[in-house]
Amino acid sequence: MAPHSERNSEFLSIEQVAKLLRKKELSPLDLVDTLLARIERWNPALNAFITVLAEPARRQARAATREIQRGRWRGPLHGIPISLKDNIWTRGIRTTAGSKILADFVPRADAEVASRLADAGAILLGKTNLHEFAYGVTNENPHFGSTRNPWAQDRISGGSSGGSAAAVASGLCFASVGTDTGGSIRIPSALCGIVGLKPTFGLVGLAGIIPLAESLDHGGPLARSVADACILLQAIAGKYPQGTTPPNYRRLQKDRPRKIRLGWPKQYFFERVDNEVRRAIEKAAECFESLGARIEEVSFPKLGDSVAPSTNIALAEATHYHESQGFYPARVKEYGEDVQERLEWGTKIRAVDYIHAFALRREVQREFDAAFERVDAIIAPTSPIAAPLIGKDEVTIAGETEPVRSALLRLNRPANFTGHPSVSIPCGFTAEGLPIGLQLIGPRWGEARLLAIALAYEEATDWHNRHPVLPANN
Amino acid sequence: MAPHSERNSEFLSIEQVAKLLRKKELSPLDLVDTLLARIERWNPALNAFITVLAEPARRQARAATREIQRGRWRGPLHGIPISLKDNIWTRGIRTTAGSKILADFVPRADAEVASRLADAGAILLGKTNLHEFAYGVTNENPHFGSTRNPWAQDRISGGSSGGSAAAVASGLCFASVGTDTGGSIRIPSALCGIVGLKPTFGLVGLAGIIPLAESLDHGGPLARSVADACILLQAIAGKYPQGTTPPNYRRLQKDRPRKIRLGWPKQYFFERVDNEVRRAIEKAAECFESLGARIEEVSFPKLGDSVAPSTNIALAEATHYHESQGFYPARVKEYGEDVQERLEWGTKIRAVDYIHAFALRREVQREFDAAFERVDAIIAPTSPIAAPLIGKDEVTIAGETEPVRSALLRLNRPANFTGHPSVSIPCGFTAEGLPIGLQLIGPRWGEARLLAIALAYEEATDWHNRHPVLPANN
Repeated sequence: MAPHSERNSEFLSIEQVAKLLRKKELSPLDLVDTLLARIERWNPALNAFITVLAEPARRQARAATREIQRGRWRGPLHGIPISLKDNIWTRGIRTTAGSKILADFVPRADAEVASRLADAGAILLGKTNLHEFAYGVTNENPHFGSTRNPWAQDRISGGSSGGSAAAVASGLCFASVGTDTGGSIRIPSALCGIVGLKPTFGLVGLAGIIPLAESLDHGGPLARSVADACILLQAIAGKYPQGTTPPNYRRLQKDRPRKIRLGWPKQYFFERVDNEVRRAIEKAAECFESLGARIEEVSFPKLGDSVAPSTNIALAEATHYHESQGFYPARVKEYGEDVQERLEWGTKIRAVDYIHAFALRREVQREFDAAFERVDAIIAPTSPIAAPLIGKDEVTIAGETEPVRSALLRLNRPANFTGHPSVSIPCGFTAEGLPIGLQLIGPRWGEARLLAIALAYEEATDWHNRHPVLPANN
Repeated sequence: MAPHSERNSEFLSIEQVAKLLRKKELSPLDLVDTLLARIERWNPALNAFITVLAEPARRQARAATREIQRGRWRGPLHGIPISLKDNIWTRGIRTTAGSKILADFVPRADAEVASRLADAGAILLGKTNLHEFAYGVTNENPHFGSTRNPWAQDRISGGSSGGSAAAVASGLCFASVGTDTGGSIRIPSALCGIVGLKPTFGLVGLAGIIPLAESLDHGGPLARSVADACILLQAIAGKYPQGTTPPNYRRLQKDRPRKIRLGWPKQYFFERVDNEVRRAIEKAAECFESLGARIEEVSFPKLGDSVAPSTNIALAEATHYHESQGFYPARVKEYGEDVQERLEWGTKIRAVDYIHAFALRREVQREFDAAFERVDAIIAPTSPIAAPLIGKDEVTIAGETEPVRSALLRLNRPANFTGHPSVSIPCGFTAEGLPIGLQLIGPRWGEARLLAIALAYEEATDWHNRHPVLPANN
């Protein structure tokens, strides 16, 4: 279980690979073949991919080679093999949403993020496993099997973008795009030891992404470093309200943040957190202080009231989508038990309570906005626990038993509820060798500074350079 | 019942009165006293006012006199007696919302519209009667009595801003501000023969207005002419997204609209409309054509599907407000029967259906926006019928029986559902002498051109110069 730091091409940064590709010291086709071989070797155990696109990827690699040879370099993603969560429409390629209902669904068009990545020259290696319809946080999928955590294969990858996280963490692709409705990018990123960014609500277009809950859904990158996440964000994001675009990864590396002010939440985020996790976050805070950051307490008195309301929003919006598609209740038997149960709960939410949830949402948004008048980012754990064992419904945290679902969700939901950007970055390992994620939440449309702060921490630490040792015989 | 056209000061336009006041040919105090005498004489029969503010109005009149004498003229509303619907907060003045529950409620602050009107120098004569909590369209109020239609006192004024409409139509005040969630400004304006404007959603600030349904509520003016409505709008409105303010009434009179294109709806707006009303709208269209307007058909195929969804939004949001205040269900017995019933319906709307309603809402909004690519305004009846008799629950329209409530609402709801501005202006009388309203719906933030088109029609006709003959002995 000891992390190793071998430096094969599959664990290089996107910037490093891009340089090799551009200089023709590495060919896109060789790179694709290396990763396809890794997928062939390890995906059967990890179950990270639902669909592997070997031949299409090789075709794209040859096209990239031709373009780069002609001097038509598209940018840092040109020739870089990536994956997409399988709830993102890909033209002519089945998009299952991890479900039986859409097991044979072949979209007529690409999702906005998919066509943006294709325009940036990225090579699509495959579609990754997810919790059914993205409606869960363990990636225990009854139709396509559980995605296993590359750091401990008896443990969950986390979800719902668990296939993306496992594939990126294992060096089966360089990065991925996932979706995050209550933590579905950040949870598996934390549990698999990579970087996951949920951008500001609305920054990444959702056209062609199969919805979970429309007012909480976000698309965003999963990657092995802050710079890699930034490169993906720039490719998939739309524009900011003021007309600018997200930060260029080079500018990020140049414009070092000065006078970082971090907010340490007085409420909610440190309640019922595993001791090893808490200690890792405290160490991260100390690291920030050693970099000159000032840390002060911030207060979110209403946040504790938001748990049921934000659940109500998710439940009602999810059921609305499945009803609107004629999937539910007509095909109720085709859903996994857990999703079935939640869809039924969704039918019972009263409109009055949904409206109440939005009223509270505005209050909590104001609390966060107010905190960002004083601090640049809020520091918190991404998850109160490291990856639980597959098959477990409950975990014990600091002596209290809690459903795995709520444990993994509760520290992530706030940023979906308020729409603020939130990034999870590696910040340590438990004694058992399981990754721990540090969550940084920033002001609306503040991805540039948020990522710069994450980068400052990343550069001061070495967690992101450790990779899981995959089993030799599989 | 024959309309008369006597020209006492109480029926002058705001612009005319403002000129007299400014030249000191008329004193604000005399004007207030004239109107207070009219209120004293006719309000007992009409029941338009819940609260008359005789002394405060006289004090304001004296203050206006002093200011005008010192040359501090605030603009066309300086010294003009107006009224406010009694769901608009007025500091230190009880604001009942037409309810028993708030019968003794005295706000600590003015609503935004109230303080804006005070800043413009308008004199508040009183607070007008409404349907309980603005939650109905007849103004049959179990706590404060029915407001009677000045054109036929056995008939409803329409609601929920019925007191405002009756007061303005009868020359008890020069104009009023009401609220419109499903037609509550335009319905009583049509039924009482005056001008009522529901502006674009969001243009008039709702701070301090007791809500009915938050995503459908609008504040706006009721007045006796388009220019008067424009003067009020300018005083109460905020800014347009592009930073400009609503049109000045003088500019409105100068910038005559050229090449007017009107849309005649193929669906919905002319279904189940009384023959006299339909004929009046057709005549209005002919009048527009004689002014050089081009009329073409416009299509709203989805609009017919919006009836239940838009009702669901109103029901759920209204119940949410009453629950959030602790009024419902705790004080259920204190509501009138009809409001009680609707609040109970509101508890039963599913969040899923509320969300569905918003999805449809976006589609219907797009249908309207698309129509406004081709036409400047949509022409329709405000109400399919003239004022029904007080106490009637049903009406027969073109041989079909329908609840009064749905008959009065259904042609108004679309502009609340989509948020587009809509104005009702007088366009004729039934054989019985009851006013008929013409509805013009315009593009979002397009009040300037919408009012200019309404003004072109008003100037070509004489309907707005007719006033009800009030009973001599009352």
